[in-house]
Amino acid sequence: MSKVKVGVVGYGVIGQRLADGVVRQGDMELVGIADVAPTLALRALAEKGMPYKLYCANPDNIPQMEAAGIPVTGTADDLLDQVDIVLDATSAGVGRKNKEIYQKRGLKAVFQGGEKNDVADVFFHGYANYEKGLGKDYLKLTSCNTTGLIRAVDCLDRLVGIERVVVTIVRRSADPGDTHRGVVDLALVEPVPNHQAKDLMLIMPHIEATGLLVHVPTTHGHIISILATPKKSISKEEVLAAFNAHPRIRVVRITDGFNSNTALFRYARDLGNPRGDMYEIAVFEETITFSGNNIFFTISVPQEAVVTPETMDAIRASLMMQATREEAVAMTNKYLGLK
Amino acid sequence: MSKVKVGVVGYGVIGQRLADGVVRQGDMELVGIADVAPTLALRALAEKGMPYKLYCANPDNIPQMEAAGIPVTGTADDLLDQVDIVLDATSAGVGRKNKEIYQKRGLKAVFQGGEKNDVADVFFHGYANYEKGLGKDYLKLTSCNTTGLIRAVDCLDRLVGIERVVVTIVRRSADPGDTHRGVVDLALVEPVPNHQAKDLMLIMPHIEATGLLVHVPTTHGHIISILATPKKSISKEEVLAAFNAHPRIRVVRITDGFNSNTALFRYARDLGNPRGDMYEIAVFEETITFSGNNIFFTISVPQEAVVTPETMDAIRASLMMQATREEAVAMTNKYLGLK
Amino acid sequence: MSKVKVGVVGYGVIGQRLADGVVRQGDMELVGIADVAPTLALRALAEKGMPYKLYCANPDNIPQMEAAGIPVTGTADDLLDQVDIVLDATSAGVGRKNKEIYQKRGLKAVFQGGEKNDVADVFFHGYANYEKGLGKDYLKLTSCNTTGLIRAVDCLDRLVGIERVVVTIVRRSADPGDTHRGVVDLALVEPVPNHQAKDLMLIMPHIEATGLLVHVPTTHGHIISILATPKKSISKEEVLAAFNAHPRIRVVRITDGFNSNTALFRYARDLGNPRGDMYEIAVFEETITFSGNNIFFTISVPQEAVVTPETMDAIRASLMMQATREEAVAMTNKYLGLK
Amino acid sequence: MSKVKVGVVGYGVIGQRLADGVVRQGDMELVGIADVAPTLALRALAEKGMPYKLYCANPDNIPQMEAAGIPVTGTADDLLDQVDIVLDATSAGVGRKNKEIYQKRGLKAVFQGGEKNDVADVFFHGYANYEKGLGKDYLKLTSCNTTGLIRAVDCLDRLVGIERVVVTIVRRSADPGDTHRGVVDLALVEPVPNHQAKDLMLIMPHIEATGLLVHVPTTHGHIISILATPKKSISKEEVLAAFNAHPRIRVVRITDGFNSNTALFRYARDLGNPRGDMYEIAVFEETITFSGNNIFFTISVPQEAVVTPETMDAIRASLMMQATREEAVAMTNKYLGLK
Repeated sequence: MSKVKVGVVGYGVIGQRLADGVVRQGDMELVGIADVAPTLALRALAEKGMPYKLYCANPDNIPQMEAAGIPVTGTADDLLDQVDIVLDATSAGVGRKNKEIYQKRGLKAVFQGGEKNDVADVFFHGYANYEKGLGKDYLKLTSCNTTGLIRAVDCLDRLVGIERVVVTIVRRSADPGDTHRGVVDLALVEPVPNHQAKDLMLIMPHIEATGLLVHVPTTHGHIISILATPKKSISKEEVLAAFNAHPRIRVVRITDGFNSNTALFRYARDLGNPRGDMYEIAVFEETITFSGNNIFFTISVPQEAVVTPETMDAIRASLMMQATREEAVAMTNKYLGLK
Repeated sequence: MSKVKVGVVGYGVIGQRLADGVVRQGDMELVGIADVAPTLALRALAEKGMPYKLYCANPDNIPQMEAAGIPVTGTADDLLDQVDIVLDATSAGVGRKNKEIYQKRGLKAVFQGGEKNDVADVFFHGYANYEKGLGKDYLKLTSCNTTGLIRAVDCLDRLVGIERVVVTIVRRSADPGDTHRGVVDLALVEPVPNHQAKDLMLIMPHIEATGLLVHVPTTHGHIISILATPKKSISKEEVLAAFNAHPRIRVVRITDGFNSNTALFRYARDLGNPRGDMYEIAVFEETITFSGNNIFFTISVPQEAVVTPETMDAIRASLMMQATREEAVAMTNKYLGLK
Repeated sequence: MSKVKVGVVGYGVIGQRLADGVVRQGDMELVGIADVAPTLALRALAEKGMPYKLYCANPDNIPQMEAAGIPVTGTADDLLDQVDIVLDATSAGVGRKNKEIYQKRGLKAVFQGGEKNDVADVFFHGYANYEKGLGKDYLKLTSCNTTGLIRAVDCLDRLVGIERVVVTIVRRSADPGDTHRGVVDLALVEPVPNHQAKDLMLIMPHIEATGLLVHVPTTHGHIISILATPKKSISKEEVLAAFNAHPRIRVVRITDGFNSNTALFRYARDLGNPRGDMYEIAVFEETITFSGNNIFFTISVPQEAVVTPETMDAIRASLMMQATREEAVAMTNKYLGLK
Repeated sequence: MSKVKVGVVGYGVIGQRLADGVVRQGDMELVGIADVAPTLALRALAEKGMPYKLYCANPDNIPQMEAAGIPVTGTADDLLDQVDIVLDATSAGVGRKNKEIYQKRGLKAVFQGGEKNDVADVFFHGYANYEKGLGKDYLKLTSCNTTGLIRAVDCLDRLVGIERVVVTIVRRSADPGDTHRGVVDLALVEPVPNHQAKDLMLIMPHIEATGLLVHVPTTHGHIISILATPKKSISKEEVLAAFNAHPRIRVVRITDGFNSNTALFRYARDLGNPRGDMYEIAVFEETITFSGNNIFFTISVPQEAVVTPETMDAIRASLMMQATREEAVAMTNKYLGLK
C-alpha cells in the first residue's frame, strides 16, 4: 500500500517534532520540510546529513542557506506539488496566510494551536473528537497545554463521565533557548477563564470548564492541577488504572524522583529520546485525591513534543486513513512506540 | 495606661518585620531584639542608627558585633528580664529549644510557622480563631501562605459558610537574597495534600481542604488559586464586596497592571512602604468566577510581611489585651494603617 | 535664592527616581511630573496623596486618570510653561520626538541612556566630564551600567591614570515586575565590544575599552568585573582607599554577607531606603586583586536608581548652578545623603 | 587486541556520561556501573533495556532496586573484581573513601573534579598535561568549567605561549532537574581568585591566573570570558584558526543564532546527540578581540558532558594505552566523533 505523502511547513520547535513524528509513521512518507531562513534547526539538520529534504519557502534566501552549508532541494511550491497534506507549523498568524495557498491548490492542511480557530473546519484532538475530523480539509490542533489537559480529562470522561473541571495551569514562559519571551522572578496571572478552559469546552462541549493561567520562569513543561467533577462516584484505584492504561499518559511517582517538570525532561534525555522529548503527559500519582466527590490530580505537559501524536491523528482523520478513533490512535501510538 | 512590653528573638526576614510591627502598635513597646551574629539585618539596623535596642543571644559574639559597628545593649537574658511576651522568630527548630528558657521564666511566647505545632498550646490565626488564643501562654502562627489563604477563606466563611476548599499554591522558592534554597527552571511538585490544606483544617476544622504545592523560581510572593464550596449560593458582587471590606485584603485588577506577585511588590515599593512590604494579601478581581456553585478566585501572598498583623493579634490574645476578635484585629489594623 | 524649577517627563522606573531625587535637592523645585496613562506608578503616587503634581501628557486620557483616582493638575504643556529644565525619562525613542517640543520652547532638557547619543549636545557623566555639560542645552546621561562602570573607572583614573579596561557585564535582563522582556534559564551573549565599552570611550576618550555583555535571569542589579591597566603601579590599599573615599561607591565585604546584587538590594530595603533603592555602586572588597600590573575588581550596579545622582549633576551643569565638578557633585551628594 | 576493562562507580549526571563515553571507545569495554539506590538514572537505564550491567554498591538495596524493575548483576565488589580501572563519579567526598577500597585491591582509579586534589597522584587534563598521568594509579580530573577553560587556554598556549589569564565565569548554579541547589534572581559573587584560576595554575604552572566566579540562575552551561596575555603578538585570524582546528572546540557565530549557553544546548538536542549533550566547548566568534596585546574571547562550557573526553584520556594515560598526548587525544576524539 502506498504511503500518504506529508509536507511540514515551518521547522521551528513544533515543526521539527512533527517532521520526526511523520518519519516514524510506517504508513506516511515525509516528502520534506519548508522554512525561510538558515535557522539553527536547519543547521542542525544539515550537520546530521539531511535525513529529510529541505524546500526553501523564500527562494531569495536559497543562496544564504547554501552559503550556510544547508542543501536545498527546491522551493516550497515544489514541496506542495508532491504532498497529500501539509502540516503547517509556522508562527502564529502565518498559517492563515498560507491557507490561501493551500486552498488554491485544493491541498489539505493541519494547523497548530497558535492560529485562530476559524482558520480550520474543525478544532481537533485525536482522542476527544477524532470523528469530527474525518475527511475535513482544514484541521486545527489544540495548543500544547490544552492537548495534554484534554488527554487527561477525556480519559476520565470516557471512564465515568465528567461534568465540570477547574484547572490551574503553571505555564512555562519560554521554550529552552527562547530570547523573545520569558519572565524573570515573576508569576504572571491572566484573567479567568484561561483560553485552555474555553478551548476544552469547544472540544468537549458537554463539560463546563474554567481555570487560571500563571506564567512562571521555567522552560521544561507545564504543570496543571485539575479538579474534575464526575457524574458518578469512582475510586482512586479506578482513576489510576485508567491513567495507567492510556498509551499517552505516564503515571509517575514523586517518591521515585519524578518531582517536577524538569525531572521528567531529564528522564527523557536519559532514556535517549531524540531531542530529550517525551510524547506522554505525566500524572503524579501522589497528587491524585478527592475533594468531596471531585477528582483532584496534577499533570505535567512536555510542551515541545506533546502535540505530535494528536497531529499524526489529524492526518489520519483528514485523509480518512482510519475510520475510528480507536484504530487511528492505535496506529499513531504503535509507530511512536507508545505503550 | 502602660504599654505591653515585647521582645523579638531572631532578627531575620520575619523578625525584622515583627519588630517594625510592634513599634507601630500604640499599646505595645518594643523593648528590643535579640540575635546571635552580625548579620546584614543588624548592620542595616546599625546604619539606621539603632531605632531599637539589640541584645546579643550569644554573648561570645558581642566583640564581633561591636567590631562590626553594631552597638549591643546586653544579653538575651537581659531582654527576657524586661518583657511580658516574646515573639520568637528564630530558624525552624530553634524556637522549640528556646521554649524551655521561656517556660523556666514563666514567660509567654509566640512562635512562627516554621516550628512544629506541638511547640504551642494553640495554633493561631487572628481572624479565624482569635478566641482560642485568649490567655494562652504559647501560640504558634500559621505559615505565610497559610496565613494569607486563611484570611481569604475565613472572609468567605463568615459571609456564607464554606464547606470545602481546593487550593493550588504556586510558591516562591526563596526570599530575595537567599542563597541556601531555590530552584532553577523547575516547577517542583509535592504530594497532595499540601501542609497548608492540613493546617487550614486544624484552624478551621469544619472545612474539608486539600491542595497542591508547586515551588517555582520566584521570590516575591505566593500565588494561590482557591476553589471554595459555599453552603449556599452567593453572587460575585457579594464576594467582591466582602473582600473589599476586609482590611487585610486588597482587591486589585489585572487590567490596571496588577498582573503578578512582583507587580504588587513593585507597587509596595512605589508606595514608599518600609522594605517595600505589604501586609495585605491581594485578590485579583478578574480571577473571581464560579464553577457550578463553587467560588474560584486567586490571591497573591507577600510572604515576608503577611504574618505581621496576625502576630500582633497573637500578642493581644495571649495577654488578653482585647476580649474579642473584632476588637483585637481592629486595634492591630488601626496601628498598621490597614484601611 | 530662588530654586531651579524642574519637570520630569515620563514616570516609569527611572522617572520616579529622578522626581524623588529632585525633591531631595535643596536648591531645586520639582514643579511636577508628566505621563500619559494611569500606570501603577501613578496609582501609587495617588495612594500616597500626590506628594507632587501630575500633568497629563495626553489630554485625552485625563478622564481615564481621574476615574482611576489620580488627580491631574494640567497638561504637559502647563508643566513645560513653568520649568527651567526638563528631565526626559520617557521610553527609548520618545525623547527624540519630545526634543522638538523642547527646542521650540527654548527649553533645556536632560535625556536618559536609552536615547541615541545624537539627541544631545553632550554625552554626560557627572564625575567624568561635568565641565563638558556646562551651559549646554541638551545633555544625555550614560545608561545605568555605564554610569556605574564609569564611576569606578573614573575614580581609579583620577588616582593613577587608566590606559585600558576590559569589562564583563553580567546584566539583569528585566526590572522587577517587567513582563515585556527577560530571559529564562539562559545566559545571552552579545558581540564584543559591548555598548558600555564604546560609551566609556566616548566619555573618557583617553581610555581604550572593550568588554562582554551577558544577559542573565536576574532583576536586582548588574555585576561587572573590570580589569583596568594603570599608568603606574599602585597598591591594593590605595585602590581600596580611593573607593572608600568616593561618596557614590560603597565598599562591601562578601564575608559580611554582601555576596550578590540581591543581598545589596535586600540591604537597601532593610535600611529603609525609599523603594529599596541604593544610589551607590558597590565594590566587593574580596574581588580586588592584580593580574600583573592590572587592577581587577568587581562592582554591583543597582540599575534602577544609579543614574539619579549623575542626572542631578546634569541639571547643575546645564543651568551652570556650579562651575566645577567638585562643587556640583558635592552639592548633589549632600542632598542625597551620600557620605 | 583485548580491550581495557573499565567500571564506572556512581551513575549520576557525570557517571552516566562517562559510561556512555567508555562504550564508544573501541579499545575499551564497559564492564558495568555501580550505584547505591534506584535513582531516575537507573530507572531510565532499565527502561532502555539495560544497555550495560548494573552492580549494586549497597547490597541491602538490591531488593529495592529489583522491586523498581531494575535488574542487578551483582555487587560493586563483583564489578571491581573484573576491571582494570575505575572511573569514580560519586558525590564529592565519597571518592576519597572509595579510594581505600581501590588501594587494597591495587586497582587504578580516576576521580572527578569534586574530590580534593590530594586524593590523586596527579591533577589531570588530557590536552594540557597528559604525560604527567602516564602510568599513574590515581588521577583526578579538573572540574567541568576548569576543563573547558584549560582546553581553550592550552590551545592558545601551544600556539603562541600564554603568560597570564584573567577570567570571569558566569556559572550555572544547578544542573537541569536539581532541587538541592540553585539561586533565584541573584548573581552570587565569590572572592577572587576563583578555584578555577587556582586549578589552572596547578595544571599549567607557567601561567599566572586569576578570576571571578558568579553563580546565576541557569542550568545549561557556563559562560567564561577570558583575557589571555600572549608571549608575542598574534592576529585574530591565527586565534580563530587554532580554535577551529581543535577537535574539542566548536567555533560558533552569534549572528547564526548561537547566542547563549542554551542555544548550544538546544542545538545539541536538535543534532540528535544522546541526552542532548555536547562534548565540545564553544567559542563565540564575535567575542574574539584584543585589548592592547591581550586576546579577549568568550566560551560556553556544557557542564554535563565536557569532562567525558578528558576522562577517557585519563584512562589512556593511567593504563599507558598511548605514550603521547597526541596519540591519546586523537584516539579519544576518533571514538567520540570529534572532528
